[in-house]
Amino acid sequence: MIKLKELEDKSKLIRKWCLISTTEAESGHPTSCLSAADISAVLFDKYFTYDISDPLNLFNDRFVLSKGHAAPLLYTLFGMAGAYPLEELKTLRKFGSRFEGHPVPEFIYADAATGSLGQGLSVAAGLALVAKRENFPTKAYVLLGDGELAEGQVWEAANFASYHKLDNLIAILDINRLAQSGETMFGHQVEKYVERFVAFGFDVTAIDGHNFEEIDNALERAVNNKSGKPVAIIAKTYKGKGISFLENKDGWHGKALKKEELQKALTELGAIDDALQFNLKKPSQTRSVEKIISNDTADLSFEKNKTYATREVFGEALTQLGKKNTAVYVLDGDVKNSTFTENFLKVFPDRFVECYIAEQNMVTVASGLSRLGKIPFVATFAAFLTRAADQIRMARISEANIKFVGSHVGVSIGEDGPSQMGLEDIAMFGALPGTIILQPADAVSAAKLVSQMIDHNGFVYMRTLRPKTAVLYEATQEFTIGGSCILRQSASDILTVAASGITVFEALKAADDLRKEGINIRVLDCYSVNPVDKSMLIKCAKETKKQILITVEDHFVHGGLGDFIIDAVSGMNIQVEKIAVPQISRSGSKEQLLNMAGIDAAGIIASINKLINTQKMQVAKMAL
Amino acid sequence: MIKLKELEDKSKLIRKWCLISTTEAESGHPTSCLSAADISAVLFDKYFTYDISDPLNLFNDRFVLSKGHAAPLLYTLFGMAGAYPLEELKTLRKFGSRFEGHPVPEFIYADAATGSLGQGLSVAAGLALVAKRENFPTKAYVLLGDGELAEGQVWEAANFASYHKLDNLIAILDINRLAQSGETMFGHQVEKYVERFVAFGFDVTAIDGHNFEEIDNALERAVNNKSGKPVAIIAKTYKGKGISFLENKDGWHGKALKKEELQKALTELGAIDDALQFNLKKPSQTRSVEKIISNDTADLSFEKNKTYATREVFGEALTQLGKKNTAVYVLDGDVKNSTFTENFLKVFPDRFVECYIAEQNMVTVASGLSRLGKIPFVATFAAFLTRAADQIRMARISEANIKFVGSHVGVSIGEDGPSQMGLEDIAMFGALPGTIILQPADAVSAAKLVSQMIDHNGFVYMRTLRPKTAVLYEATQEFTIGGSCILRQSASDILTVAASGITVFEALKAADDLRKEGINIRVLDCYSVNPVDKSMLIKCAKETKKQILITVEDHFVHGGLGDFIIDAVSGMNIQVEKIAVPQISRSGSKEQLLNMAGIDAAGIIASINKLINTQKMQVAKMAL
Repeated sequence: MIKLKELEDKSKLIRKWCLISTTEAESGHPTSCLSAADISAVLFDKYFTYDISDPLNLFNDRFVLSKGHAAPLLYTLFGMAGAYPLEELKTLRKFGSRFEGHPVPEFIYADAATGSLGQGLSVAAGLALVAKRENFPTKAYVLLGDGELAEGQVWEAANFASYHKLDNLIAILDINRLAQSGETMFGHQVEKYVERFVAFGFDVTAIDGHNFEEIDNALERAVNNKSGKPVAIIAKTYKGKGISFLENKDGWHGKALKKEELQKALTELGAIDDALQFNLKKPSQTRSVEKIISNDTADLSFEKNKTYATREVFGEALTQLGKKNTAVYVLDGDVKNSTFTENFLKVFPDRFVECYIAEQNMVTVASGLSRLGKIPFVATFAAFLTRAADQIRMARISEANIKFVGSHVGVSIGEDGPSQMGLEDIAMFGALPGTIILQPADAVSAAKLVSQMIDHNGFVYMRTLRPKTAVLYEATQEFTIGGSCILRQSASDILTVAASGITVFEALKAADDLRKEGINIRVLDCYSVNPVDKSMLIKCAKETKKQILITVEDHFVHGGLGDFIIDAVSGMNIQVEKIAVPQISRSGSKEQLLNMAGIDAAGIIASINKLINTQKMQVAKMAL
Repeated sequence: MIKLKELEDKSKLIRKWCLISTTEAESGHPTSCLSAADISAVLFDKYFTYDISDPLNLFNDRFVLSKGHAAPLLYTLFGMAGAYPLEELKTLRKFGSRFEGHPVPEFIYADAATGSLGQGLSVAAGLALVAKRENFPTKAYVLLGDGELAEGQVWEAANFASYHKLDNLIAILDINRLAQSGETMFGHQVEKYVERFVAFGFDVTAIDGHNFEEIDNALERAVNNKSGKPVAIIAKTYKGKGISFLENKDGWHGKALKKEELQKALTELGAIDDALQFNLKKPSQTRSVEKIISNDTADLSFEKNKTYATREVFGEALTQLGKKNTAVYVLDGDVKNSTFTENFLKVFPDRFVECYIAEQNMVTVASGLSRLGKIPFVATFAAFLTRAADQIRMARISEANIKFVGSHVGVSIGEDGPSQMGLEDIAMFGALPGTIILQPADAVSAAKLVSQMIDHNGFVYMRTLRPKTAVLYEATQEFTIGGSCILRQSASDILTVAASGITVFEALKAADDLRKEGINIRVLDCYSVNPVDKSMLIKCAKETKKQILITVEDHFVHGGLGDFIIDAVSGMNIQVEKIAVPQISRSGSKEQLLNMAGIDAAGIIASINKLINTQKMQVAKMAL
């Protein structure tokens, strides 16, 4: 049984504060909140189980607002649950407020930043998956809008949820017909959504989203779901519901009411008691998310005269470290035999998440895992991480603690051709503030840097190589975020070549070839691409005759290692010459493609000769 | 009626050359070709209508290989259609061959580069849409694998195709059960795919993909489709079909046969006549794709004392230019009232394509449009273009002629918060070789640069601003790709501030404030971000006292305008100081957020003061 009058009042109070807060802010999406007010009211009043004083209690239910622009709804719900006084909602969208235009981590009740549409179902699926795997009796609720159902990621997540039998996942679809610039693809044809979610393996109930009885029945059924399927409650609603001049009207998306319109709306709502609250059900137990700090290193040894693929070493190291740190989860997009996360799967199937070829969902599921204290490793081809660029961006805004591993970087992959080459991945990750980027060239550095990835709290991206490479380092060598290693040096070095990954070997070959001609160059392995080892770069440049740094990398010209280095030494009167992949590559052998790009030993030597000759000519000119 | 024996022989010939070519290459995906050999044989033998001497005849059918790793199949099919001798397939995957590991534009029969999965249906939808809109009696066929059906983009495209009633689109699904690292999500449960495509509005036929009668009936039905729906032929197949030791066997993905295995396989196939050919049906008419070159400019005038949003000016200019150039199409992701492409919709509904909130499909549909000679403009929030980073990457590899417009760039959007801010878009587009990046600061430059976008053949990205800005330029001012404009200069400038977009106004304010203190700085509007105006930057730096360039931009620190500028002046002994957005932003007013990021006038002045004082201190130190 539901208390109809009380629910009506509470949903009116939700409406009131969604309207007041957006009018105060002079922007926002009040009508997008109003359509979901009734269903949210029932959820929070009767079903949502949550300790408001402990958002990270693992026995809490979860509530993800996928339609992030309805943020005032989220803020009002938690306010009515006692998290803060509703009056504080008047700071909505103002500088310094925890109530931002779209939810961000500063609002501690948000499980992820939302606002780029179509990502919430994946977050909730990640939350539900952890609960399933670790036997928490909790539900993951997610409120989606209808406009965002056009995003493919929603269907990736839907497949994922039904495949993994996430019957603790409850998706509530707010089908309010109107999107930003007009009607959605299907308007109020609710059956279109029913057909789709049924086909994707959900237990589906279609309801009138403004009928409290129907809402209650659907939620009751959902929390007692024994179908083995995730649940979709598809609610036909009206945008702007409850206010006559807004309800189901075009042209009101993303518009706050003017003061006088607000007064009219509040008059329509009538007197409402601001003291009305949701007394959330308390979770049965308390167990907080805790961060496991292991500081372990993988115990791997490599033979000096053998070659190893860093991607394979990564897989082995991760598996070893997974024994020591049970927070480590691994997510795969059907390339586990290429990234070598299959090693981890064999030992820890319970912490391995097969996401199939759906990178967007994979990344956002990882965001959900991170929220519950896991340390998710997302590994696929570097090229295919670009498929999830927006999800990576949003996970970064969410402050998720995700480790990304991109294999098959650069033209060195050879015959498969440009579609498979990761050549813009450093630019993508590098743009995101505070993202660590690592690229080990050999087995020793690869193994050691995996533990650094785990220990660092925040985004880390590691590039791994397809080809096998020689062992460069002794087992005792240390590798740290921000570090680098000198591989060739002499007292008479004329300049420094700063390389990373596969180009380290080309730089070494160039150094050896030049030495035969009596020219010494220094070679620096910049295994830490960001932060790059600024002091060492400056030291190397200053110690060499020409004070020149040549950067060489298997990445496109813009946004890669070279730009990090130029930036790091800017203003130090050091000349930097960038060598990188100048154009779309093609199929061929590794050697042919490195050569075509000008990033092999021959390319490095040519660049050095050109620099020397140019300087000679300049000197000659000056002498004239 | 079908000629069974002949089809059997032709499909054997396909198999033979898929096996030979991959063995010669020592890599590739032969088993992924074999599962689709039978269905492709019937398609090419009886239905596919195409002038092999004129791939860009608009009356040709289209064939998109979405599962790009089955490239040898594509190459064999067109070889058997007479495009080249099959013997040439022995160059597969070799440096210089047109037969790359995955299809690229050098293979002139490919309508798009494929190899990043789940994109082909969108390409085909773009091709089918043009045929529909312009009344070509052609079909767009697309062959998809089952693994790639997990990609959300497939479902974006499916919605798009049924919504736009593309009954000339025929999707063939090769359900061969096995993906790269194991079984697909649904294995051989063909009904899972049937349910999904039916729900998404397709006319669906499920067949045995190795039964020629069933294949023929399904294709016959498809080409005569009057359902108003796109067609999906869901074929249950076996990976490696036709060779006993490959067929339906695990562990054979992406593996070429060794020489002795090849011999065994060819012995199984038996003697086949290499002269067997597909005599493709000729199209009813010939009309070639032609490029319309207009060199027109929009005739817009702006009042000097008014303010305009560049996004709005873009919409107006595009609409004007659309009158003059009928190749211009516009694609929207439900933000047409924010990007102002709604202006174009009002005048040219036939060349406006509503894609709803599904950016991945939007970009790849544009790639299809470009293939047929259209000049597609893809416009959405800059932040949401990152949703399609992989599609943009693949469209670039496809050499598509797409114009991207990202609105709401930077922290200057204000209250909506970080999820809506485009702050990594320059890094993304900048990494792709040959991509032009423009950012007009005012109405005059915005209007003029839209025509430059149209006239340039290839990728162009324009950033537009949410806030209105003052008019900076006279109507007679010229703007070119690679250009810049000096907005403040004097004989006593101490340094140059290079700005773009919203920061131009901050730089001007800084200049005006500093002038009051007797300090003159030069201000350069770098409306062309890539290529940046190298010679002008060097000139400005050299003409100013301190030979310093300060770059200031509303973009994250890495990969933006600053990096283009540092790179451009590298080695010229010019100090460059980069000011950009250092961290994730938040909600607030435009002014507050520009200030928080340190990219407002105050931030510029602080940076200048710091530089002057540092230099003063250095001079003082040297004097000691």
